[in-house]
Amino acid sequence: MKGLMQDWPLTVMSIIDHAKRFHGEREVVTRTVEGPIHRTTYADIHLRARKTAQALTKLGVKQGDMVATMAWNTYRHMEAWYGIMGMGAVCHTLNPRLFAEQLTYIINHAEDKFIIFDTSFVPVIEAVADTIPNVKGFIILTDKAHMPETKLKNVYCFDDLVEAEDGNFDWADVDENDACGLCYTSGTTGNPKGVLYSHRSNVLHALAANSADAIGLRSVDAIMPVVPMFHANAWAITFAAPAAGAKIVMPGAQMDGASIYELLDTEQVTTTAAVPTVWLMLLGHLEKTGAKLPALNKVVIGGSAAPRSMIETFERDYDVTVMHAWGMTELSPMGTLGAFKAGMEDLPFEKKLDIKVKQGRAIYTVEMKITDDDGKELPNDGVAFGHLMVRGPAVAASYLKGEGGQILDEDGWFDTGDVATLDPLGFMQITDRAKDVIKSGGEWISSIELENTAVGHPEIVEAAVIGIVHPKWDERPLLIVVPKPDTKPTKESVLAFMEGKIAKWWMPDDVVFVDEIPHTATGKIQKLALREKFKDYKLPSASAAE
Amino acid sequence: MKGLMQDWPLTVMSIIDHAKRFHGEREVVTRTVEGPIHRTTYADIHLRARKTAQALTKLGVKQGDMVATMAWNTYRHMEAWYGIMGMGAVCHTLNPRLFAEQLTYIINHAEDKFIIFDTSFVPVIEAVADTIPNVKGFIILTDKAHMPETKLKNVYCFDDLVEAEDGNFDWADVDENDACGLCYTSGTTGNPKGVLYSHRSNVLHALAANSADAIGLRSVDAIMPVVPMFHANAWAITFAAPAAGAKIVMPGAQMDGASIYELLDTEQVTTTAAVPTVWLMLLGHLEKTGAKLPALNKVVIGGSAAPRSMIETFERDYDVTVMHAWGMTELSPMGTLGAFKAGMEDLPFEKKLDIKVKQGRAIYTVEMKITDDDGKELPNDGVAFGHLMVRGPAVAASYLKGEGGQILDEDGWFDTGDVATLDPLGFMQITDRAKDVIKSGGEWISSIELENTAVGHPEIVEAAVIGIVHPKWDERPLLIVVPKPDTKPTKESVLAFMEGKIAKWWMPDDVVFVDEIPHTATGKIQKLALREKFKDYKLPSASAAE
Repeated sequence: MKGLMQDWPLTVMSIIDHAKRFHGEREVVTRTVEGPIHRTTYADIHLRARKTAQALTKLGVKQGDMVATMAWNTYRHMEAWYGIMGMGAVCHTLNPRLFAEQLTYIINHAEDKFIIFDTSFVPVIEAVADTIPNVKGFIILTDKAHMPETKLKNVYCFDDLVEAEDGNFDWADVDENDACGLCYTSGTTGNPKGVLYSHRSNVLHALAANSADAIGLRSVDAIMPVVPMFHANAWAITFAAPAAGAKIVMPGAQMDGASIYELLDTEQVTTTAAVPTVWLMLLGHLEKTGAKLPALNKVVIGGSAAPRSMIETFERDYDVTVMHAWGMTELSPMGTLGAFKAGMEDLPFEKKLDIKVKQGRAIYTVEMKITDDDGKELPNDGVAFGHLMVRGPAVAASYLKGEGGQILDEDGWFDTGDVATLDPLGFMQITDRAKDVIKSGGEWISSIELENTAVGHPEIVEAAVIGIVHPKWDERPLLIVVPKPDTKPTKESVLAFMEGKIAKWWMPDDVVFVDEIPHTATGKIQKLALREKFKDYKLPSASAAE
Repeated sequence: MKGLMQDWPLTVMSIIDHAKRFHGEREVVTRTVEGPIHRTTYADIHLRARKTAQALTKLGVKQGDMVATMAWNTYRHMEAWYGIMGMGAVCHTLNPRLFAEQLTYIINHAEDKFIIFDTSFVPVIEAVADTIPNVKGFIILTDKAHMPETKLKNVYCFDDLVEAEDGNFDWADVDENDACGLCYTSGTTGNPKGVLYSHRSNVLHALAANSADAIGLRSVDAIMPVVPMFHANAWAITFAAPAAGAKIVMPGAQMDGASIYELLDTEQVTTTAAVPTVWLMLLGHLEKTGAKLPALNKVVIGGSAAPRSMIETFERDYDVTVMHAWGMTELSPMGTLGAFKAGMEDLPFEKKLDIKVKQGRAIYTVEMKITDDDGKELPNDGVAFGHLMVRGPAVAASYLKGEGGQILDEDGWFDTGDVATLDPLGFMQITDRAKDVIKSGGEWISSIELENTAVGHPEIVEAAVIGIVHPKWDERPLLIVVPKPDTKPTKESVLAFMEGKIAKWWMPDDVVFVDEIPHTATGKIQKLALREKFKDYKLPSASAAE
């Protein structure tokens, strides 16, 4: 028997409609790419999004078409989002940090019809323009006065397009399962793969994000998403904030410590979210200037693990609650957030940090478990670590055009590629990437834990651990370190330092010293390159075992 | 083009599954009907719900069957809920305050297969047992030691049934649109009508309820739903609390001020929800004993309008935030909640109360507008009042078996039967029931506002206003008042008191004095009975106009 409730589709348009009616006066403040601070409201964003939809319709964009954006977090980007999605097209966010070949691949693979971008990215788009023949036109997110010179053809000025319309537009009649967003993930192997979000997945994710124990936005909040809209939906904030009626503060292109601090301060931001590198810059600025953050309540840190010292500094020196988060593009992106459970607030500071360094608890609508290599579920004891598996309405079922094949197991679980522990209170901690785990004699060794231990050595700048083939143990860890300038640590001193801090059988079999460890564009260690470089490396213990 | 996200149905089982895995240790504390305080956890509730489902299956209950409950808020009621819904059956909550004939009608109309009820309701069920031939058996929510004597046939002891099972049960494979809950509304005319909730509507409503600006439960919270589970889903709390991992404190059958205070105090309740009458009893108890409420942060008040003095007392004397709410069975039930917007917290106390007496803002997923008699939308200026219309995924589309016919307009809006204003900041205020509004010369007069003004008179206990047919104005207001004991207010003194407090043309055309005003079982004024009583009443002004 079916229930007798209304068939009310979960669409992102319903979010901006809600914001218009119940929070029409609430501000969206932007540091524009052109420079000045710009202030608008949800009512005006709603109006200009409708006008955007009208303009795109006139340009020939149809329901289901792909329209790409390459833009910083600004009010215009938000208008473009809701305009594209509101007409039933799909907003494909392009990451400007990608290499030209990757951009070409992605734009052609997605079959983007138009690209909407900031003035700062004119050179990036010009560099690929000849390789993307299906793109019919280019829309630059600025006004007439700031339109740049460009050799691109079929170029439009966003404000001109918008201002030519009357806003008399009804949102497209879409099914909640229709696609509305697209974001590619760049795996370490193979081509980037597209995650195709639906209206439903975005709405459910925004609802989960607004739960009091997640990002938990209220209408009195001012939220600054430093995490970019081109990076996995800005962690749901551009959907969650209008649903809650929170003020949004958009940092535009300026993410340095001084610029971020200025907005936090002048706009009285209460909640903000970004990756650790942004916070390093902000904390550096605060230390230098002695500035404080009286309005800020909560900082959400994700993208990569927040260092303990960063959490400590925010909480102790600035009285800001750190909420550690974990997610990935395939999860829309949030999976876990680190809100305390009952009693934790009363723990001693160091015990609290022990919990805060974990990645947090799954939000409701995200199912989560850890398994061994055979798919058997492992205990949630905070010790056992295994493949982190997830299910949920905002988790990818497959990639665009079937790239990568079947990505769910027979019970519908998605393998995140991460290795993690789950503790009895539900807190998850990432211990490694599955492909980086060292498998020694059937047991797993966490490369990340070895690296974190090694960098505690006073003469080490950075450390990486990879598995090296071993005749007896399958793999054994090799520690690769970059010494601090003008120091000469020895293998013996490094191993002596690590002894007692980790299990005996986890001790690296060898230590090599290098000048530099290779990194990806987003600052992560390129383990693939290291494995390639050391593929013929022979451990001393291997010779002994042979 | 469809999105490529997981097909993860929104089921209430996913809520209790989440609670089991991430909040398995969190407590559900009950003042049992038998007397003692009982403590259990979400992990145990999950286990006993599965056992309940097994037991019901053995008794012949099938997916889609109706199983009724008539029970106070207790852990056993919660186990029964999740057991019934988890096996794909529909949990039909019976209101024990209904008359026997209404119960008979409802149980037969719903085609209930079993009735699960507290020991306190044995006489109520016995009284109707002979009139409900389709009911196959009766399950009493207690243990063997407390099983009462009863003349009912096919009686089972809930704990016996549960304890005979092993819990090895997989939740039913349901569609998210399948029915899972049923609650009848008792309209003022005609038979009660059944609202049939789906898994989807309950899940979406719980997500909306957990938004930080709504009830906003966090895992550190302890929530006491005084509002009964048999009354419109206990305002979503039995779904929202396990989704958030909040502790639940169940008051059982004792709703007097002393009992409620004791639980608030000993269990350190942070959030609670009930109708105004419950809070009157609690405030009376606090005043008498001088007790305070240091742990309590938030009290949600709905069901009927919270008096200004009650809000004032909670906020000023007990430092408890009052959140005024409005909803109805057809809305699952919540429509609005009164969280402040930016800047309101800094207003003077009296200005804050002006906002708090309003019913609040629509939660995201509830669309809301006000219209005139022709369906034309009225301005949101806080002055114009009209029919309050709603849409949303947790709003009824029709009643069980089509009772009452088509209940949505052609655009899918549900007419709440309330008359309200909407102000520019989105706050809604109920001004009347549509059928109680006095229509005078094409304009509307709010009966509630006249009543509220009249009871300010020092010699009036209670007041009711109804419309009396008038040859010139269609209708004019008649004020019916109950004088305070040993006072003799006059028509002239009452009208003089009201003058200047309301618009001139709103002034009642006549005042009559009565010993008593008739009330419904839930304490509301029976305007229908008053209209019947005064149907031949002739206003002095009518004679003049003829």
